[in-house]
Amino acid sequence: MALCRALLSERGEISGARLAGETLAVYHSFDQAGRAAFFDSLAAEFSPHPDQVAAAADAYRAEPSAATLVRLQRVVEPPRQELFRRLNLAPEGTRTLVDMRRHLLQHSGVHPQWLAIESDLMHLLRSWFNRGFLQLRRIDWTTPAIILEKLIEYEAVHQIHGWGDLRRRLEKDRRCYAFFHPALDDDPIIFVEVALTRGMSGKVQPLVDPATPVGDPGTANCAIFYSITNCQDGLRGVPFGDFLIKKVVEDLGQQLPQIKTFATVSPVPGFREWLARNFPAEEKETSLALSAASPASSDGRQKAPEPLQRELTALCSHYLLHAKHGREPLDPVARFHLRNGARLERINWRGDTSASGFERSAGLTVNYLYRLSDLERNHEMYMKEYRVVASLAVESLARGVHPRGRTAVAGPPR
Amino acid sequence: MALCRALLSERGEISGARLAGETLAVYHSFDQAGRAAFFDSLAAEFSPHPDQVAAAADAYRAEPSAATLVRLQRVVEPPRQELFRRLNLAPEGTRTLVDMRRHLLQHSGVHPQWLAIESDLMHLLRSWFNRGFLQLRRIDWTTPAIILEKLIEYEAVHQIHGWGDLRRRLEKDRRCYAFFHPALDDDPIIFVEVALTRGMSGKVQPLVDPATPVGDPGTANCAIFYSITNCQDGLRGVPFGDFLIKKVVEDLGQQLPQIKTFATVSPVPGFREWLARNFPAEEKETSLALSAASPASSDGRQKAPEPLQRELTALCSHYLLHAKHGREPLDPVARFHLRNGARLERINWRGDTSASGFERSAGLTVNYLYRLSDLERNHEMYMKEYRVVASLAVESLARGVHPRGRTAVAGPPR
Amino acid sequence: MALCRALLSERGEISGARLAGETLAVYHSFDQAGRAAFFDSLAAEFSPHPDQVAAAADAYRAEPSAATLVRLQRVVEPPRQELFRRLNLAPEGTRTLVDMRRHLLQHSGVHPQWLAIESDLMHLLRSWFNRGFLQLRRIDWTTPAIILEKLIEYEAVHQIHGWGDLRRRLEKDRRCYAFFHPALDDDPIIFVEVALTRGMSGKVQPLVDPATPVGDPGTANCAIFYSITNCQDGLRGVPFGDFLIKKVVEDLGQQLPQIKTFATVSPVPGFREWLARNFPAEEKETSLALSAASPASSDGRQKAPEPLQRELTALCSHYLLHAKHGREPLDPVARFHLRNGARLERINWRGDTSASGFERSAGLTVNYLYRLSDLERNHEMYMKEYRVVASLAVESLARGVHPRGRTAVAGPPR
Amino acid sequence: MALCRALLSERGEISGARLAGETLAVYHSFDQAGRAAFFDSLAAEFSPHPDQVAAAADAYRAEPSAATLVRLQRVVEPPRQELFRRLNLAPEGTRTLVDMRRHLLQHSGVHPQWLAIESDLMHLLRSWFNRGFLQLRRIDWTTPAIILEKLIEYEAVHQIHGWGDLRRRLEKDRRCYAFFHPALDDDPIIFVEVALTRGMSGKVQPLVDPATPVGDPGTANCAIFYSITNCQDGLRGVPFGDFLIKKVVEDLGQQLPQIKTFATVSPVPGFREWLARNFPAEEKETSLALSAASPASSDGRQKAPEPLQRELTALCSHYLLHAKHGREPLDPVARFHLRNGARLERINWRGDTSASGFERSAGLTVNYLYRLSDLERNHEMYMKEYRVVASLAVESLARGVHPRGRTAVAGPPR
Repeated sequence: MALCRALLSERGEISGARLAGETLAVYHSFDQAGRAAFFDSLAAEFSPHPDQVAAAADAYRAEPSAATLVRLQRVVEPPRQELFRRLNLAPEGTRTLVDMRRHLLQHSGVHPQWLAIESDLMHLLRSWFNRGFLQLRRIDWTTPAIILEKLIEYEAVHQIHGWGDLRRRLEKDRRCYAFFHPALDDDPIIFVEVALTRGMSGKVQPLVDPATPVGDPGTANCAIFYSITNCQDGLRGVPFGDFLIKKVVEDLGQQLPQIKTFATVSPVPGFREWLARNFPAEEKETSLALSAASPASSDGRQKAPEPLQRELTALCSHYLLHAKHGREPLDPVARFHLRNGARLERINWRGDTSASGFERSAGLTVNYLYRLSDLERNHEMYMKEYRVVASLAVESLARGVHPRGRTAVAGPPR
Repeated sequence: MALCRALLSERGEISGARLAGETLAVYHSFDQAGRAAFFDSLAAEFSPHPDQVAAAADAYRAEPSAATLVRLQRVVEPPRQELFRRLNLAPEGTRTLVDMRRHLLQHSGVHPQWLAIESDLMHLLRSWFNRGFLQLRRIDWTTPAIILEKLIEYEAVHQIHGWGDLRRRLEKDRRCYAFFHPALDDDPIIFVEVALTRGMSGKVQPLVDPATPVGDPGTANCAIFYSITNCQDGLRGVPFGDFLIKKVVEDLGQQLPQIKTFATVSPVPGFREWLARNFPAEEKETSLALSAASPASSDGRQKAPEPLQRELTALCSHYLLHAKHGREPLDPVARFHLRNGARLERINWRGDTSASGFERSAGLTVNYLYRLSDLERNHEMYMKEYRVVASLAVESLARGVHPRGRTAVAGPPR
Repeated sequence: MALCRALLSERGEISGARLAGETLAVYHSFDQAGRAAFFDSLAAEFSPHPDQVAAAADAYRAEPSAATLVRLQRVVEPPRQELFRRLNLAPEGTRTLVDMRRHLLQHSGVHPQWLAIESDLMHLLRSWFNRGFLQLRRIDWTTPAIILEKLIEYEAVHQIHGWGDLRRRLEKDRRCYAFFHPALDDDPIIFVEVALTRGMSGKVQPLVDPATPVGDPGTANCAIFYSITNCQDGLRGVPFGDFLIKKVVEDLGQQLPQIKTFATVSPVPGFREWLARNFPAEEKETSLALSAASPASSDGRQKAPEPLQRELTALCSHYLLHAKHGREPLDPVARFHLRNGARLERINWRGDTSASGFERSAGLTVNYLYRLSDLERNHEMYMKEYRVVASLAVESLARGVHPRGRTAVAGPPR
Repeated sequence: MALCRALLSERGEISGARLAGETLAVYHSFDQAGRAAFFDSLAAEFSPHPDQVAAAADAYRAEPSAATLVRLQRVVEPPRQELFRRLNLAPEGTRTLVDMRRHLLQHSGVHPQWLAIESDLMHLLRSWFNRGFLQLRRIDWTTPAIILEKLIEYEAVHQIHGWGDLRRRLEKDRRCYAFFHPALDDDPIIFVEVALTRGMSGKVQPLVDPATPVGDPGTANCAIFYSITNCQDGLRGVPFGDFLIKKVVEDLGQQLPQIKTFATVSPVPGFREWLARNFPAEEKETSLALSAASPASSDGRQKAPEPLQRELTALCSHYLLHAKHGREPLDPVARFHLRNGARLERINWRGDTSASGFERSAGLTVNYLYRLSDLERNHEMYMKEYRVVASLAVESLARGVHPRGRTAVAGPPR
């Protein structure tokens, strides 16, 4: 803390980089307990003074001028904010601050007093990671290994199993884009993986299987977004995904004018849980059918009786269109894409036959369609009326579902 | 303003880049009156609400928790802050915001209501232009013309007269370094010009004369900082100069280990004015001697009688050591370098024989010495006790001066 | 020479770079006489041995096998060839060898014995500067000053008067491309200047006048090649121009699909000389009309009587279509473009009103049209039958000319 | 062949790049038989004409002037040489020509008529791959994956087992450098792997084991070259290795002045074969001891009796110092390093305990010492007198060996 105080003092102005470096070196040497003590001190020592705040607020109320406002703004800003700014002078300063917030978020349940620090960091990082500063870069096999290695590490949706797997995902029938920030040079902020296909694909497995033959991008007419991963836990809550998808749609649309359809292949992660709660009989049937289709008897899977297919896709449409969390859809992936202005286009039977695909989404996938010309209008309708824009096919599927026995639409999961 | 409101609305989230671009296009189309109306609206419409502020401040006083503080911080932040952040999504967004602040600063005398907007921009820009994000680049003849052209335009200390002049300042016995920010790609933030010399030079003219023969950097033992220029008026008040000088001293020290002395050749811009007020007889004498040494009779200049030389350099030492502005030196250049931890090393007779050199500094220049190992200690002594660290030679010169008649040491200029 | 021998010896293999550097340092220290002595030694000492050559040739005649051929090839290669290859190890080795050839070419008239050395260097440089190794780069205002400076220095067709002039030629309604070779990093091999215009321009002055307003490249439909300059005298005889023009036409055609016409504005450098020899009366008239149009009375120029205009353009068509140097056109610029497969499209009255434009081309300019789809066929017809492909307009103009008095069509200039 | 003829014709000048591309596309489509027919045609059709050669040789013998020499040189150059030069215009032209020579070398045993073509390509490639055009680049974890992948593929000395293995070899206690040529952009020509160690290491296994802990380069005083690999079979016979090692020694010496010793850890690949032929009893004993030390009983290996160690190292010194191939050492690795001017410094018992290490080198390794100040002198002594420069230790070891029964020193292997 002495180093922190020195850094905030006049001395910090001239010796900033050195003091910041030393402070971060000490921080990196902390064990769990040391770090906790450090954050406790930050929360206790570097907060705004309530009396000063009150006085400044009274002054502003009495005379709401530029001068009183500036004074008020100054006293409500905790001194640790300036401390964080000065820590940024150290090599890898920004990276450490992002990491600090990751740590605070992880442990704020147990240490609620850290929330104010976390909020300060959030404020700072949201400013520094303004979308205007992000750089879109294409990732391919000419990208430095130090970056590719991070994709393997970060990929959260469909795990990348080593370098051979990664290489397949960077072949000429694929595209991968990431946002970078100048202060986190070799470390992506977020990345998206895209497959160029002929026709809108609804199946996950051919996209992630390294043995899938490489297609000819010249004959592709579809760009399928099959994975999007936020890389920096310390930037949680700063939204990048919508911006990235939009940028990539624009970019690809210019470079490959033959690509007419931009869509995702997405999971329906809340479906089985919702089913169990609202349609227990159907859930039981599903469970039996899927366990019959266990890895050991993969043939079994393909024999899921047609009626079940009809019933489950209908229930899934119903879930996506009518199950709500507040006024928004209950399904978090649906919330993300609909909020972005995408359209709920198609539900695919046996779209994801992985264990987790069965477990959460009953093997179903959804295509959300990104049509540049409609994004803005859809987004506005969603934001104002929470209206879910869906294709006729999905809407007609949903119409067949009659809530039985108990209320069909669940509240948010508890 | 409708565009601004749209940009701040939900719609702005998805259409941010487009709306921001349109807003800035409108802004760029404004004439003087349009811009004034725009800023007036920003000041009137996008300020925090005094009642909300007061309520949040009361809540914080009643219970100074993380939650009440975060709430207070949110309401004291004017909505235009978020507006500026979203404008940054447009191409050249950051550049326009810097330019906006330049404009506000220029006209805030007439429009005091704009000061709050200017202060918001200052807060934002200070955060975005954190020193940790600046990139030090060496400028030389392999630098793109688009950057070199800006040096010619910006140079504020010793004007660069076209490309031939610039080329001389980038020869192998010179160094030029600039800070850049990733968002202002081809536009330097600040730059410094350095000459590699044998012995500590005190004369400006040989350094800026393009006809000066190019020296051998291998035999140089001195690095003379002869010009430092802030390029962005819209970033006024964000200090970069101290950091740049320190970085360059470190860099040169590593690359050219034979360089042992790092010093400036600086003007004494307040000297003649102070002299006139405090030593009118000497000022008159100086004035006569210098006007005798008019450009038309430049020989005359060199015949300034020795007693005058002794007297003026002594008075200048006295001025630098004892004339104060509050507790700090009256001379602004001295304040800057002493605050940085430099040492007042030497006063040079006829160091700057240009018209402006005679007019403000009586032809004198000062070497401020940057010794890395002392910077921090000097800086601290200066910040705590406002102690001016000077060489024995300068101190002994000053001891000869006896204030006569009226108080020798002037207050700050009115 | 001792250094050269050492470099060629076994020792050269391990100490190559050092010995090469020392040799070139000695070479650079030579005065005129030293250099001459050096080249004389190279010619005398490092040539193939006639007896060995004869023996190897006899062996090949006796048994034309791979082995005897390889042996023959080895003995006909002068040892200086290997010397040059080893000199290339020195820093700036390639540049010095190019410069050496420039020197040899300049002085081979007086020193015919140097022609063999020059021919060896030509062989080597033609191999090293294979077109496959050239890199096309666009030159604009973001190009390093060290390269731009060379354009100003090299420009041979329409002189560039300083940096302001150059900047105009790099505005957004212009394009400039150059070939670079990896071994001559900051030094262009050849460059071409292009103006994007609305309609096929025939006038030189608006293209080279820095005060010409900058046009909108979006509305341009024509790319006018108004200057092409070979930069390296030491590479004379290695053709780059045809390849550069073709590459740039391809590149621009892809980037700016609205550009439909690619043409030059070219001088007719041999016209006045031919006119004087074959149509002395018309030449006299021309001379009078042009001298009346002296810079002092520039109005006069514009009053050149219409009959003269008709007569001169007709004579110029005749000159370009029928005046021959062997079987090719007498005009060297025509030879170059027609050989490339371009078409003689249009003759422009008062196309170049500069002093040199009047003096050599009688103020006329020619547009040679580069139509990608015709280049190959035109080139072949030219190479086989020396057929000059011209527009109907030019051909019809030429039909009006009746050779009078003496033979109208001159032989090659003596 | 029609394409080849077109490419060599006048037409080829203007349509070069297109024709070259088409020709190479046809070449790439060839199967084994097609390629053989193509090479046969090249050998038959595009050779110099013996009569023309003889006539030109006679002319040169009669009058050995520059003109007759140039004429002779022209006719002895096979037209296919120009064909190859023009093929270089195609994208990836150089790469294909290198590959062509690789193919020719592989099959020239069966097709001796191809040797002349191979020799032409060798001549061309040796000129194009002049050392002066090579670029030294450091390879590390920031290198593009497309290059790293090639290291894994090419490594010929100590196989790289996948990306994890490679990553270890690029850690901070390692250095890897490669030569690149501008025309083979992402494809190294040759690369060397270096370990920074404390003390001169003689053991291979710790260097290639990915589990070896990463050392601190700051405390290292030795740079051990443990692997050097030529990447392009099509450039066989163009020497790069000596130049690369020398460059890297110079580079490391400047960057890491604490590194005082530069040495290899090298195999003795001809030792066991020589032993079997000259000291069959010792070879038998070695064989038994080593097979006792089979992988299954790796303890056994370590119990090789001391007398055997003494005897084998002595025999190895004798082998390296006295077994000859002509006047040079019999051992090919020794020839390479001694020719480069290195010194035979130390023989290491159990230096390479891999299967191939035992099989060829009896588990021994050799340190060849590269001392910059001695390289040139050693190289010259070697080249003139074939003198093997060795340490006293190695020389004294060798003195203990008495050739028994039959001649101890074998001729070159048959």
